[in-house]
Amino acid sequence: MNLDGLNDFSIEVPSWAYGNSGTRFKVFTTKGVPRNPYEKISDAAEVNRLTGLAPRVSLHIPWDLVDDWSDLRRHAEENGVTIGAVNSNLFQEDDYRLGSLCNPDPAVRRKAVDHHLQCLDVMRQTGSTDIKVWLPDGLNYPGQDSLRGRQERLAESLRAIYDALDPDQRMLLEYKLFEPAFYSMDIPDWGTSLLHCLALGEQATVVLDTGHHAPSTNIEFIVMQLLRQNRLGAFDFNSRFYADDDLIVGSADPFQLFRIMSEIVAAGAHRPESKVNFMLDQCHNIEEKIPGQIRSVLNVEQALAKALLIDQEALAVAQRDGDVLGANAILMDAYETDVRTALADRREERGLPRDPVAAFLASGYAQKAATDRAGGTQASWGA
Amino acid sequence: MNLDGLNDFSIEVPSWAYGNSGTRFKVFTTKGVPRNPYEKISDAAEVNRLTGLAPRVSLHIPWDLVDDWSDLRRHAEENGVTIGAVNSNLFQEDDYRLGSLCNPDPAVRRKAVDHHLQCLDVMRQTGSTDIKVWLPDGLNYPGQDSLRGRQERLAESLRAIYDALDPDQRMLLEYKLFEPAFYSMDIPDWGTSLLHCLALGEQATVVLDTGHHAPSTNIEFIVMQLLRQNRLGAFDFNSRFYADDDLIVGSADPFQLFRIMSEIVAAGAHRPESKVNFMLDQCHNIEEKIPGQIRSVLNVEQALAKALLIDQEALAVAQRDGDVLGANAILMDAYETDVRTALADRREERGLPRDPVAAFLASGYAQKAATDRAGGTQASWGA
Amino acid sequence: MNLDGLNDFSIEVPSWAYGNSGTRFKVFTTKGVPRNPYEKISDAAEVNRLTGLAPRVSLHIPWDLVDDWSDLRRHAEENGVTIGAVNSNLFQEDDYRLGSLCNPDPAVRRKAVDHHLQCLDVMRQTGSTDIKVWLPDGLNYPGQDSLRGRQERLAESLRAIYDALDPDQRMLLEYKLFEPAFYSMDIPDWGTSLLHCLALGEQATVVLDTGHHAPSTNIEFIVMQLLRQNRLGAFDFNSRFYADDDLIVGSADPFQLFRIMSEIVAAGAHRPESKVNFMLDQCHNIEEKIPGQIRSVLNVEQALAKALLIDQEALAVAQRDGDVLGANAILMDAYETDVRTALADRREERGLPRDPVAAFLASGYAQKAATDRAGGTQASWGA
Amino acid sequence: MNLDGLNDFSIEVPSWAYGNSGTRFKVFTTKGVPRNPYEKISDAAEVNRLTGLAPRVSLHIPWDLVDDWSDLRRHAEENGVTIGAVNSNLFQEDDYRLGSLCNPDPAVRRKAVDHHLQCLDVMRQTGSTDIKVWLPDGLNYPGQDSLRGRQERLAESLRAIYDALDPDQRMLLEYKLFEPAFYSMDIPDWGTSLLHCLALGEQATVVLDTGHHAPSTNIEFIVMQLLRQNRLGAFDFNSRFYADDDLIVGSADPFQLFRIMSEIVAAGAHRPESKVNFMLDQCHNIEEKIPGQIRSVLNVEQALAKALLIDQEALAVAQRDGDVLGANAILMDAYETDVRTALADRREERGLPRDPVAAFLASGYAQKAATDRAGGTQASWGA
Repeated sequence: MNLDGLNDFSIEVPSWAYGNSGTRFKVFTTKGVPRNPYEKISDAAEVNRLTGLAPRVSLHIPWDLVDDWSDLRRHAEENGVTIGAVNSNLFQEDDYRLGSLCNPDPAVRRKAVDHHLQCLDVMRQTGSTDIKVWLPDGLNYPGQDSLRGRQERLAESLRAIYDALDPDQRMLLEYKLFEPAFYSMDIPDWGTSLLHCLALGEQATVVLDTGHHAPSTNIEFIVMQLLRQNRLGAFDFNSRFYADDDLIVGSADPFQLFRIMSEIVAAGAHRPESKVNFMLDQCHNIEEKIPGQIRSVLNVEQALAKALLIDQEALAVAQRDGDVLGANAILMDAYETDVRTALADRREERGLPRDPVAAFLASGYAQKAATDRAGGTQASWGA
Repeated sequence: MNLDGLNDFSIEVPSWAYGNSGTRFKVFTTKGVPRNPYEKISDAAEVNRLTGLAPRVSLHIPWDLVDDWSDLRRHAEENGVTIGAVNSNLFQEDDYRLGSLCNPDPAVRRKAVDHHLQCLDVMRQTGSTDIKVWLPDGLNYPGQDSLRGRQERLAESLRAIYDALDPDQRMLLEYKLFEPAFYSMDIPDWGTSLLHCLALGEQATVVLDTGHHAPSTNIEFIVMQLLRQNRLGAFDFNSRFYADDDLIVGSADPFQLFRIMSEIVAAGAHRPESKVNFMLDQCHNIEEKIPGQIRSVLNVEQALAKALLIDQEALAVAQRDGDVLGANAILMDAYETDVRTALADRREERGLPRDPVAAFLASGYAQKAATDRAGGTQASWGA
Repeated sequence: MNLDGLNDFSIEVPSWAYGNSGTRFKVFTTKGVPRNPYEKISDAAEVNRLTGLAPRVSLHIPWDLVDDWSDLRRHAEENGVTIGAVNSNLFQEDDYRLGSLCNPDPAVRRKAVDHHLQCLDVMRQTGSTDIKVWLPDGLNYPGQDSLRGRQERLAESLRAIYDALDPDQRMLLEYKLFEPAFYSMDIPDWGTSLLHCLALGEQATVVLDTGHHAPSTNIEFIVMQLLRQNRLGAFDFNSRFYADDDLIVGSADPFQLFRIMSEIVAAGAHRPESKVNFMLDQCHNIEEKIPGQIRSVLNVEQALAKALLIDQEALAVAQRDGDVLGANAILMDAYETDVRTALADRREERGLPRDPVAAFLASGYAQKAATDRAGGTQASWGA
Repeated sequence: MNLDGLNDFSIEVPSWAYGNSGTRFKVFTTKGVPRNPYEKISDAAEVNRLTGLAPRVSLHIPWDLVDDWSDLRRHAEENGVTIGAVNSNLFQEDDYRLGSLCNPDPAVRRKAVDHHLQCLDVMRQTGSTDIKVWLPDGLNYPGQDSLRGRQERLAESLRAIYDALDPDQRMLLEYKLFEPAFYSMDIPDWGTSLLHCLALGEQATVVLDTGHHAPSTNIEFIVMQLLRQNRLGAFDFNSRFYADDDLIVGSADPFQLFRIMSEIVAAGAHRPESKVNFMLDQCHNIEEKIPGQIRSVLNVEQALAKALLIDQEALAVAQRDGDVLGANAILMDAYETDVRTALADRREERGLPRDPVAAFLASGYAQKAATDRAGGTQASWGA
């Protein structure tokens, strides 16, 4: 089983996955949840320590604001991880009730743009090179605002941010079908995101969140198309049965995750030079967060491992010959292969535990965190 | 334009619609939002005062708990409204992380049942006869719990509640496709709700929330089927483009609302003796709440008015003759009729303002509330 | 790997899967397609010969009408298979433009009922005990006919058929969300099908076609609920990405198929005494039909094999303890296990080819059929 | 009621709508259906004669092939209509089982390209300037072919067609989510269509078929975005509840049609200089075809009329002020206005019947067609 393609592959984990999250109905809490960015990074580092797969941590501003960025960076590096993408926040200010970068009020748009300039500054201090922009703007009622006018404002706001990028910085522009707006989002689909990126320039690329599509959307087609345009900047991995459920990636439809990774492998985009950033974006509403994250990175690794097993040569022949069942069978052979032992062997060779979840549970980390982190306010969406 | 069918028709409004609500990302606030059940009822009464359509207010327990129920009842009556259905809450206790009436832990189930006994007591004190049970229970991950086992626990828990009903009390059992659970809800569809109602007895009926279905579901078919089974207890009206968006009823698809009301009219279920409770359940996340509610009740009234205009005799003939386009045209004739002037005339005859929204905006009520309700904590989901 | 649960498990294949099928745009043909029921049964028998899994063939009337039923039955038995369910056809008569069992014209309804009496007679002559009723009736336009009136006519028509059943005969009543009707089907969901079955009596059970639901529907929940009601009569297996795509079962979402079979195993319904009839209903529009069928029965077998591997005891403990990730992991362990070698071994032990598809391709059967079946009219939907 | 915006507005009707169509299950027929392109054009002209709205007829090649194009053109002009867009056909050749412009076999791709060259020639002879390309290509099974490879082949095939365009000819490139392929279409969404158009040049524009999207898609957003890119070439109007139902436009969701036309009006794209071609593409499976077409063009006219009533000035103010309910109410005021009398008056002024459907039914046209068109083979999809 040749799994060399895994060698330089890595996954980025989000700081906010270690804090509390929930639905509009309730945020459940557990003991030991981090209270600040340092503790979030410690938890993220634990995931990397056990899996060897997650060497970067995304930050979210303002949730992860600290006074001394070099100190946070040092903390990360001491724990074997680095700071990854910086995520801006356009949804938690009262001013953003009717939008941020698209708001009819120019003062609000200015504020939203300025927030990104602040994020670019954080990037300069933390060594991060990616700013991820998820735009929660949109409308709840037809007629509420001009769909077209909002696109023009958006273009202008994005331009202001883009022009402030350093040459080595990238903008990752995310799209989402719905939520928090329920009539129309201002970047609802990959087409809209890509058009803005094309207008901005080569440092702008698209983020594909696997939970941000209409039911039945063929996500691997979009992956292929964005790779073909050289504009797939990053994934936000998670999984969903219904809407943007933000469940553990691979838990709802592991075959879909495999198909996505198969398009990645077909284009060689699992290699670092592709600059595709494979990030998680999940909400562990009811399950334990650190093992949830471990499971997530293992699921992505497993899907990639299976995709690497596809006999590309035989597949090309079957496809060329129009052998529908034969070509499909070659793909399914890879998918149905149980790679778990090979992956455990591989981990062992690298000095990692064969079963990272079991190792975590046995480590006492959770119990220690619960004790050490008594008092204070647990981090969560919104804090 | 014969609109006599409107004469005894009424809509029930929810106390929580006057408090703050939002998405998991943000709850926006405005000035003047009620801080307690008294102020919520005052706001609801204002909607009734201006429309003549909303004489009942649903309560939500524990959000609307007060020390003296007879005093709250008096406050309602002084303001020209009565207490409607009592809604239980099964989603805001930490104990309910893995479910309430279906929880694997019998102590949690007992707690959830007991909460309903408390609600039944509130009903006895407020003159309410309907207890509405929305079950947020479900699973996020396949295998997390036994789907079948949860049904058995649910049946047992509901039985305990049902057996505590007085002869004049009804249980309204709601279903929902997803959210807050994302793999499976324990009452995901009308079929499941109905089966439990049939098992319980004649005092158990189904609640149809118009936002709780899969995309493409024909809701008026379900209305028809539940009426045919004599088990349509109530509506939770709202509207949606995507998921359970909880927008103003009739704002996303007014033709669907008309079709629903057409099934109601065809069965005579708009008359009080049908005992169908026409309730709203909405979230005014970004718009003003009281005018949002006024608009909502007017939208339902308008849809019913149009449905009453259908020439049932001509329709029956066209249907019998298999005249596809002719039958459809008869329906559309009613839908395309502008009934707004007739409804305004009708309001005027009854001493109500022709334009209730304009009357509200001109009344100074909102400004006064903003002043009077300075300080304190605004009511919202969860408080 | 204990796979004893497979021992008495069998799958029923449809005669029409061996004929041509297609979309409304085009029916593609290939050489060697059967021209009559005898040749269809021969092809089906080939699938059973190579897999040992498909000992019954469903017929479709009138497509499979023959003059001498005992001769067809003899042909089947000589080829090692028996006649399974008989499917009625309510969609290919000009009279059915506005419906069959629900048609506003009583003469058309009578004709549709009579067709079922004919089918019951075929059953008596072929040894079949199941009549499968898929109702294509519905409306394309709101108002076209009375939704409620059609339910009453349906109840009456079904009653006339049901009353003609012999004591050992069952009615299998299928539901479908949409197509060929596009506004409302007359049996759109499991709830409607079940209500009619409950009204008819114990010989009426529901058919679950895996392609007949709205997007996002949790199918295994319905499986569980129908088993709980003792009314799951049969499956029509296939798979879909969008609508009723009728692709090879397990090809679109193998994890979903596994979850369905897990509910089956949890209830012991894979055993013959459950009387659940596991049928295929697919359209091999572009792929070769016999290997497509072989692959289909193997996919169902594989999903069942994995479901049998679930450690039920450990699962029950994890579920009872509320261990979300642990319980899910137990399920996933079974799913991720590669059972293909074990299944090949099992086949070999039984004198079957290790790789039935390869054995078929090597057998020359297809080439021989192409030669032998020159001339004549290939069977297809509609003939 | 200022409806001047209707003055130069026109709708193009499809020749195939007058022939038979159906689902994969059944094509129903009625008397009087055209047997050749001349009779189809006669029927289409009748729609224009009664509505004054449909002066162009789209052709479909090869269904509408005739020996003498100038004679067909003369026939059209004598009946007061002209030839509109020419539609190619890529789905009815056996060679296209695995695709046409994307087929792995270069000979098949060449054939498909050549077919378009033939269509361009028909355009030169009929005065048509638009070639509409709907690509039915796609995959049914994952792995069946290379998603990426097919895009490259598509780009090459389209280039060959585009390069053959005369300077006054346009290519209209349609997208569709699914059907006839069920795993992935090769042009599944507007983004893919637009990317190919951008690569081809300014004579390539996108066709938006209102039935070709995932559930919940906000179509008017796409209209806005394509107008903003100056690449909305045409509509294929129809309506749907589920998939590509091809029902009468405006029959499933008249409010959606109004919102679409509102975006058109906001951009001034209802005026001829926008070059947006407003076409119908529908299947009158069970209803009478000519009245079905009349109803369709009236529905589009009505939606446009309502959109023209929007008080744009007041709307802009409410939007600028962030008045959510006020802005929505301005839109709804236009939608809720009954414009039927004004439109009937307008028709009368122009010498057209007030009620075109009633006029058609009274005209005896259908009866005469049924008599005159006895014998021969009725036109349908595929012939």
